[in-house]
Amino acid sequence: MAVELSPPDPASLRPVEGVELGVTMAGVRKANRRDLLLMRLAAGSTVAGVFTRNRFCAAPVILARRNLAAAQGVRALIINTGNANAGTGDDGLKRAALVCEGVGRAIGCAAAQVLPFSTGVIMEALPAERIVAGLAAAVADLRADNWAAAAEAIMTTDTVPKAASRTVRLSGGQVSVTGIAKGAGMIRPDMATMLGFIATDARVSQEALQELVREAADQSFNCISVDGDTSTNDAFVLVASGASGVAAQSRADLDALGRAITEIAVVLAQAIVRDGEGATKFITIRVEGGRSVEECRRVAYAIAHSPLVKTAFFASDPNLGRILAAIGNAGIGDLDTSRLQLYLDSVLVAADGGRHPDYREEQGASALRKPEFTVRAVLNRGPAAATVWTCDLSFEYVKINAEYRT
Amino acid sequence: MAVELSPPDPASLRPVEGVELGVTMAGVRKANRRDLLLMRLAAGSTVAGVFTRNRFCAAPVILARRNLAAAQGVRALIINTGNANAGTGDDGLKRAALVCEGVGRAIGCAAAQVLPFSTGVIMEALPAERIVAGLAAAVADLRADNWAAAAEAIMTTDTVPKAASRTVRLSGGQVSVTGIAKGAGMIRPDMATMLGFIATDARVSQEALQELVREAADQSFNCISVDGDTSTNDAFVLVASGASGVAAQSRADLDALGRAITEIAVVLAQAIVRDGEGATKFITIRVEGGRSVEECRRVAYAIAHSPLVKTAFFASDPNLGRILAAIGNAGIGDLDTSRLQLYLDSVLVAADGGRHPDYREEQGASALRKPEFTVRAVLNRGPAAATVWTCDLSFEYVKINAEYRT
Repeated sequence: MAVELSPPDPASLRPVEGVELGVTMAGVRKANRRDLLLMRLAAGSTVAGVFTRNRFCAAPVILARRNLAAAQGVRALIINTGNANAGTGDDGLKRAALVCEGVGRAIGCAAAQVLPFSTGVIMEALPAERIVAGLAAAVADLRADNWAAAAEAIMTTDTVPKAASRTVRLSGGQVSVTGIAKGAGMIRPDMATMLGFIATDARVSQEALQELVREAADQSFNCISVDGDTSTNDAFVLVASGASGVAAQSRADLDALGRAITEIAVVLAQAIVRDGEGATKFITIRVEGGRSVEECRRVAYAIAHSPLVKTAFFASDPNLGRILAAIGNAGIGDLDTSRLQLYLDSVLVAADGGRHPDYREEQGASALRKPEFTVRAVLNRGPAAATVWTCDLSFEYVKINAEYRT
Repeated sequence: MAVELSPPDPASLRPVEGVELGVTMAGVRKANRRDLLLMRLAAGSTVAGVFTRNRFCAAPVILARRNLAAAQGVRALIINTGNANAGTGDDGLKRAALVCEGVGRAIGCAAAQVLPFSTGVIMEALPAERIVAGLAAAVADLRADNWAAAAEAIMTTDTVPKAASRTVRLSGGQVSVTGIAKGAGMIRPDMATMLGFIATDARVSQEALQELVREAADQSFNCISVDGDTSTNDAFVLVASGASGVAAQSRADLDALGRAITEIAVVLAQAIVRDGEGATKFITIRVEGGRSVEECRRVAYAIAHSPLVKTAFFASDPNLGRILAAIGNAGIGDLDTSRLQLYLDSVLVAADGGRHPDYREEQGASALRKPEFTVRAVLNRGPAAATVWTCDLSFEYVKINAEYRT
């Protein structure tokens, strides 16, 4: 029941020179299911990533961070579904290392040049031997025009595959950017994880790439909330193969490339919310006129995380009291509520500390009945703004999460 | 569907000398419903309170705070249900003032000696004239042995009235402590509010009373979470009439009195959770071995606020991954997850960063099938501990909150 979300047209997903993708059925948890994705990167590729801040981060996250920091040149990403290899202690690290060694043997690189990613059930031993056994088939499947299959292979309880592509003209020529993501909650029940992978064939320095991945994350994956939880396995990785021979070095080229990367990241992040567990509405929360972006984000998340607000969205109930109470609850000690203006889409619903005299409830209800709408709060105390995307809280959310393992 | 919660036995609720209670049907929102409670306090009573920190606090909260600070000697508390007088701007303040003036005329004191409290729908004008018209009947009903009726009169969507009583022997003689509360969520949909009132006939200085109310709140109403929201009208007020002639002045007497007050506050706070919207389980979250109480509370609330954990509780699913992920998500940057131990009741379920080898899932499921159980996390990094009480997240919660106004 994803909100206004269709599978990407495979023909729209541009191959990225220097990046090959191979998928196979490794039988990690279930048979007859594509559950393993190998991404082989051309020599000279640069790779940067941002990872979950959850202290219970999974073994593959620890190893991916370590191998990325070792900076020996990443040659492959290996992603399995079915098992998150999280909450598995030292044994989990050993199994993740076994997978990296297997990939190294299969494609001829060092184990430290492989970044592992896992998603699926938590606290169960990763069947590393089955993954290693599946690598030959994944290698055989490697090709550049395989993004659609890759997007499908990393799905867990996603109902729709998530992928997007752009071309960008830089001063040295045209480059491609293509990305995939999975996730249907900031954290899935046992299927914990948001994973995003974006690749370009531009040549980008390690330092610049790290900046691009942070900027893109801040404007996309860090702006979404389904249920406020952050998983043990979240990761967003950016690859620049350099295989196009076109470098992004000047500020202008980096800005142009960054915009395309961020656009794709936003499409993918929004797709995760649209595919949110039990979601029936896609809601943009926009907070303006704050003293800092940080305080605007706090207010936006206070709204996006409130179960009372989210159930009201589900019911198409323009319950202004809940939204105002959530704003008042955002922890901004000197917020002057009498200066706040609240809009549902373009309708001014509250001002001067209460309901706007011209507002009629039917206007609010009419906005909230739509599958997509915007809640806009203007704090009138500064120049900053922030946007967060979220979904509603439905019966289905409780059902999915209560019955997931039963 | 309150969890293991029965109405208090009226005979167990001890009158508090110097405190009279009168209830009536003022027709605030609905006819034929006791919706107004007047508490008249003997001259010389001291009163202290803690109030919501929500920046959208309601008009009566603003006025109650102001009148309490004016320190002219509080002579009455007036509490209405049906309308919260919140999100009502300047007009709301005027209406709350009208109610205080009416009480002043009715019992012969200054308006500034009256503390007003309101709970009910948000953003609608308080029918102050109906409340004032009802005061004569409330005054006629005033008596000391009226606590059970008072507990019922302040209910909104509570399914069970909440009250408790104790006697305490101080060095100068015996005193009584009796309290009532309402609330079935940290915030109700439109029926926003947690209200708690505890009174004693001991004589306590204003300064000491303020300390007692803070201590009691910190160990009771500030330790509960139904859905993580804080309402616009929350208030907890402590009254010491002094009418027993017994003073609580020495450290020992204040400690003994404080223990009784806190005991009652804990019973009332737990009753609010047991009566939580849609609650089917009552869960104690105990976090030990932290560096500070503050960090223990952060971990406890991270567990108590996680929708994924709460839906797992509802499903009696011992989903350890969700609990560990919530702990990892509590924002304690240097938490060493390999040192953490997690217990469901007395069963050690996780240690060394993963599932404990002796743990069998049936043990966890068996604990979670009970209507009450304890989640205990031992951080092993310091001497501090904290406890939070919460309930599960059920279909019924979504139903109540989605359909409340429709």
